[in-house]
Amino acid sequence: MTPPPDGSGLSLETLPLRADLRGLTPYGAPQLDVSVRLNTNENPHPPSAGLVDAIGKASALAATEVNRYPDREAEALRADLGAYLAADAGFPLRPGRIWAANGSNEVLQQICQAFGGPGRTALGFTPSYSMHPLIALATATGWIDEPRGADFTIRPEAAADAIRAHRPSIVFLASPNNPTGTALPLDVVAAACAAVAENAAVGGRDAGGVVVVDEAYAEFRQAGVPSALTLLPSCPRLIVTRTMSKAFTLAGARLGYLAADSAIVDALHLVRLPYHLSVFTQAVARTALAHTGELLGTVEAIKVQRDRIVDEVRALGGQVVPSDANFILFGRFPDQAAVWSALLDRDVLVRDVGLTGWLRVTAGTEAETSAFLTALADVLTHLPPIRP
Amino acid sequence: MTPPPDGSGLSLETLPLRADLRGLTPYGAPQLDVSVRLNTNENPHPPSAGLVDAIGKASALAATEVNRYPDREAEALRADLGAYLAADAGFPLRPGRIWAANGSNEVLQQICQAFGGPGRTALGFTPSYSMHPLIALATATGWIDEPRGADFTIRPEAAADAIRAHRPSIVFLASPNNPTGTALPLDVVAAACAAVAENAAVGGRDAGGVVVVDEAYAEFRQAGVPSALTLLPSCPRLIVTRTMSKAFTLAGARLGYLAADSAIVDALHLVRLPYHLSVFTQAVARTALAHTGELLGTVEAIKVQRDRIVDEVRALGGQVVPSDANFILFGRFPDQAAVWSALLDRDVLVRDVGLTGWLRVTAGTEAETSAFLTALADVLTHLPPIRP
Repeated sequence: MTPPPDGSGLSLETLPLRADLRGLTPYGAPQLDVSVRLNTNENPHPPSAGLVDAIGKASALAATEVNRYPDREAEALRADLGAYLAADAGFPLRPGRIWAANGSNEVLQQICQAFGGPGRTALGFTPSYSMHPLIALATATGWIDEPRGADFTIRPEAAADAIRAHRPSIVFLASPNNPTGTALPLDVVAAACAAVAENAAVGGRDAGGVVVVDEAYAEFRQAGVPSALTLLPSCPRLIVTRTMSKAFTLAGARLGYLAADSAIVDALHLVRLPYHLSVFTQAVARTALAHTGELLGTVEAIKVQRDRIVDEVRALGGQVVPSDANFILFGRFPDQAAVWSALLDRDVLVRDVGLTGWLRVTAGTEAETSAFLTALADVLTHLPPIRP
Repeated sequence: MTPPPDGSGLSLETLPLRADLRGLTPYGAPQLDVSVRLNTNENPHPPSAGLVDAIGKASALAATEVNRYPDREAEALRADLGAYLAADAGFPLRPGRIWAANGSNEVLQQICQAFGGPGRTALGFTPSYSMHPLIALATATGWIDEPRGADFTIRPEAAADAIRAHRPSIVFLASPNNPTGTALPLDVVAAACAAVAENAAVGGRDAGGVVVVDEAYAEFRQAGVPSALTLLPSCPRLIVTRTMSKAFTLAGARLGYLAADSAIVDALHLVRLPYHLSVFTQAVARTALAHTGELLGTVEAIKVQRDRIVDEVRALGGQVVPSDANFILFGRFPDQAAVWSALLDRDVLVRDVGLTGWLRVTAGTEAETSAFLTALADVLTHLPPIRP
């Protein structure tokens, strides 16, 4: 934030900014011009020529009626998303149980607007996705931080105890978790859902809550790990959020979505901005969903590079946290910021997520991954990791 | 809101919905399948074949990098928007003074998140755009309703008095106003800006506010009516919002924006969701801005139909409110709902905005406008208007 160059005398200090926003800086990773960008967990594979062509055609078709407002309900897109999720859920999800918005951040914001707000709290298990507390803050929802264990896992009893103690309106879980890559066993999710239901049974409607499992990276999970979607029939207060930014290569298209009980989707209707999803967003997302097979092929390629990073970082003497995502938390370093800078000097951008001793790297293409591993090997000769 | 068919027992009544949202129904005009849709102030002219083609090409180009996150700052788009506004402002507006989001509703929501919130209020002069109080509600901002005069105008002294009395954090003005079509003289805007600055001078930083002039329909204003943009140099607390939904025929693309002091734009950065504008939204909006001349041609055609509606409704014995927009408030009827239904029976959809005695109609194509006027003449033989 620089002082105003408008000569108006107005500044953040003289404006009536909300008190709880004072001193914040805007969220966002540095957008640096670097050859190997492995800092924002993007899918390194651009869409195929066929998909690019299909997106252009779908957009042109959408443009012929762009003078009209879009389908406010995005019915066709929600039907396609429900059909896609059926494979992971094990049962069909009709459009009334699906909701979509401009990125999963907007989905999460709508959840906080509907169920959070002044006098209410959201509870998360950190370290986790740093937007969860920021979205809570922006919606004037209080935030309760529960620490994960030393290995970044959550015990079911610990989750239930925290929820019973704090009676949050919203519980955030993430699986696989960002920035650690940790997948949650379903018994943690089930324990959280049971605890919010128990709170409602004991304390009444407003003492209950909803449980959000942020599955942004679900498609990258290891074989045999079930999705929280499978718990929807037994956990009505469960919301599973997803994104098309990662597996579907659509970070630039901004499409997040969720599956939940239809009553929860009804509640989100009360806070969504009308016509929030453009005709282009709807058309592009549907086009990508029609290319699911091709896009999930990139997921397999990325998983190969992820597992390669795990093996090679260990071979270099480093530690890695087991990952079900398209990124790896690696370390530990006496000074992770120095390692981050040394990698940047070698034209490789990773993420310092603020976890002492650790850095996060996205699994890129084979070439990008090789560039990272070569740079890291070089850096570690000067800045060795802490021995386990 | 129907009861949940999921068999879960969950419903809006048993969920911990925010107390102030209970009993609401989702915002939105009926989306009915009717030949002549004149209910949501859309531009009736679809984009030209040339623009459709350009949008398709721009979208395909954007798709080649859609695996990467978009430019979080939308710098190029904001530069284009600032260049476009210079004609109405009378001076250039650099990107740091421009902000854009998914529809002006999201722009307004970000303003409420930054400057409103718990314990704060927004003040509007009703009847006006009904989303203003709804966005205040969704962001937990209190709402103060000041009535307009019988002719739907606002006196500068009345505006200043209300602002001094209530010390709102946000003042909403709309010019041309929806649903009345009324343009605000600049002395009203200047008086509001002076009053919020006086509140800050007297009561300190948090007693001050910002003044939002919602100029969604500005391009349709009558010749000689200045934009509030011209006041930006003398009113640092002024925010002028615009949309590409109307004059630019992009209702389906969702692009709203604002011009303000750069310190205000800095504040919005603290609440915006990162990467909120997709690569497609940015590309489509820039493509339309490159076709400004063509699109503003549709504005002239619409103004002809608007002025025709004014003349012909008066000739039919009805009353109209002077309009600077692409719609007309007409009446007055003993039962406006009966007239609305009778028009719908004749395949013409207009808007009952909840103002006793009045209905709102959008100026359509020449053919749509003729269909409306023919239907109205027929209806008025059975349901005559109240004589002035």
